[in-house]
Amino acid sequence: MFVILVYDMGEKRVAKALKRCRKYLNWVQNSVFEGEISETNLAKLKMELDKILVDDEDSVIIYTLRTTHYSKREIMGLRKGGQDLII
Amino acid sequence: MFVILVYDMGEKRVAKALKRCRKYLNWVQNSVFEGEISETNLAKLKMELDKILVDDEDSVIIYTLRTTHYSKREIMGLRKGGQDLII
Repeated sequence: MFVILVYDMGEKRVAKALKRCRKYLNWVQNSVFEGEISETNLAKLKMELDKILVDDEDSVIIYTLRTTHYSKREIMGLRKGGQDLII
Repeated sequence: MFVILVYDMGEKRVAKALKRCRKYLNWVQNSVFEGEISETNLAKLKMELDKILVDDEDSVIIYTLRTTHYSKREIMGLRKGGQDLII
């Protein structure tokens, strides 16, 4: 399945979260990741993030897409991530 | 069409960007918005955001979905936005 993941983490935990997310997904920009991922790996990633995130400070949003891909992604402004790799 | 929008703005510009995005989309969490939007309104929103964002500091990512909706959205940790309104 194809997921889009966005996190909002406290500064101290960003590096850890980035590392975990990059293990399974493609880094698009700042706190945004995307990619094909198996259910097993998504469960693993969620467990790993769950260990890092502080419940009343951080958040992670995971969109699972019905189709294998979105139809368009536009980026305005700064480009920080490792995008342009998969599209 | 259905879009997911994520911004990463400098602190000074967050309030302005939030206001613009909420005019057209549903606020999910922190810097994440989603919703049905017409092409005309998306063009308007992009123009409004373009006026706010500082090119080498801020970024906005807009995903346009092929289907009218994603199949699942999961939120881990903190809930800040006005979610649970549309699903």
